[in-house]
Amino acid sequence: MQEKRARLMGVARESLSNRYAGEEHAVMQAINSYLEVEKVRNQVFERLEEWYTIYFPEYRPSSPTALAKFVISFGMDKRKANVDELRKTLGEGAERLHQQISNSIGREPEKEEYDTIKTLAESELALLDVENKIDAYLAKSAKKVMPNITTIIDYKVAAELLAKAGSMEKMAMMPASTIQLLGAEKALFKHLKYGTKPPKYGILFKLPQIVSAQKKMKGRLARLYANKISIAAKADAFSKNFIADRLKADIEKALKKGKK
Amino acid sequence: MQEKRARLMGVARESLSNRYAGEEHAVMQAINSYLEVEKVRNQVFERLEEWYTIYFPEYRPSSPTALAKFVISFGMDKRKANVDELRKTLGEGAERLHQQISNSIGREPEKEEYDTIKTLAESELALLDVENKIDAYLAKSAKKVMPNITTIIDYKVAAELLAKAGSMEKMAMMPASTIQLLGAEKALFKHLKYGTKPPKYGILFKLPQIVSAQKKMKGRLARLYANKISIAAKADAFSKNFIADRLKADIEKALKKGKK
Repeated sequence: MQEKRARLMGVARESLSNRYAGEEHAVMQAINSYLEVEKVRNQVFERLEEWYTIYFPEYRPSSPTALAKFVISFGMDKRKANVDELRKTLGEGAERLHQQISNSIGREPEKEEYDTIKTLAESELALLDVENKIDAYLAKSAKKVMPNITTIIDYKVAAELLAKAGSMEKMAMMPASTIQLLGAEKALFKHLKYGTKPPKYGILFKLPQIVSAQKKMKGRLARLYANKISIAAKADAFSKNFIADRLKADIEKALKKGKK
Repeated sequence: MQEKRARLMGVARESLSNRYAGEEHAVMQAINSYLEVEKVRNQVFERLEEWYTIYFPEYRPSSPTALAKFVISFGMDKRKANVDELRKTLGEGAERLHQQISNSIGREPEKEEYDTIKTLAESELALLDVENKIDAYLAKSAKKVMPNITTIIDYKVAAELLAKAGSMEKMAMMPASTIQLLGAEKALFKHLKYGTKPPKYGILFKLPQIVSAQKKMKGRLARLYANKISIAAKADAFSKNFIADRLKADIEKALKKGKK
């Protein structure tokens, strides 16, 4: 009896353990973390931007990173920065920036204020570093787990689809129409319940090929990609054959035909 | 004409410049940043927790920091951690944790997975550091800007009130009832529009003295504190006299009386 119980527990543990074994789980966690860190970094940037406005209200940074670098390098006493230093740290626009600094109505921060705001700027750069590292990991792992899908579409969009689907197996079993609408659950629910317009795409909307398409073509393109992704998912999950080159050629053919 | 214009521009610039001059602006930015970083750090923690579940589903970390430290120190191969090392890094509960590790059904991460998840853990500790630095700055600066108010209540709650009010001057002009409801704007609006229960407090609800009070006393306490804060604000903004010891004594007297 005791023995049988121990054996059964062993089997149960094994099967649970297998559920977490695949690298696909790491891919799903990685893309979710990436999206979260991206959001979080933006929030920190917005805070930093608002705070630093006190000291340099005229400044319109070209990017979050530019602002963080400016604060770290010149935030203590911006008037001391010369054009060369500005150019070295921030690249273009140094002359204009130097002009803005000399005309600025902002006061310089106290030492303690500066120290605090600097940690905020540093944390933004640290988060950017995290973002880049997760991205690099995703580039490798998503391509390994989904060689076919990532040949057709961007690896981050592929990872997002996988995370929404829940597993490679689940994604492979989905009809193309479900893949097309992954990530549009709310809009779909609204459509079914209140009769609003049905959604045309969910996560797939992030594909540059769809973003840049004409409005009336977007829905058709989403269907085209969803069809091919659905076939590619079956290959990635089950047969492990590499068929993506053919799928990609199909897509390109369809795109050309559509343009005529 | 030219001269007059230049002079007028100078005056306008001066007055704008003064608006940003006070340290109170830095205090308001600091508390808003603190609250944001706190939120953001929690989001990173939740991500990390969910991701690391793949590798160690049995682990229930005692705090966000504990999880981050565990991942950084032992995440690559948790089975190698001995009890002494666990105790040194995490303190209490090392024996139990060691037991959980040896019975864990989680696999170990691949090197690349580990490197990625580690950056996430490190960013959490980095954000905690930012939080602590802003906190230290606030402790000093809020006390400097609001010597009276911060004697009566916690300096972070005081800073939040200031940020909501918009300036020391504005806060000093507010009736006590407005201070009592600062931060409860939504609930107040709902009350006025839909006839829901009126709110009893906004930010003041964060005061430990009110958190720990009996339910039926909370509203009365919020009014008491708001009254005294309103008087303290006038002193901090205008007269610059230090009258907080008296106000504090008043509060304590009222509290004693209330308990009888």
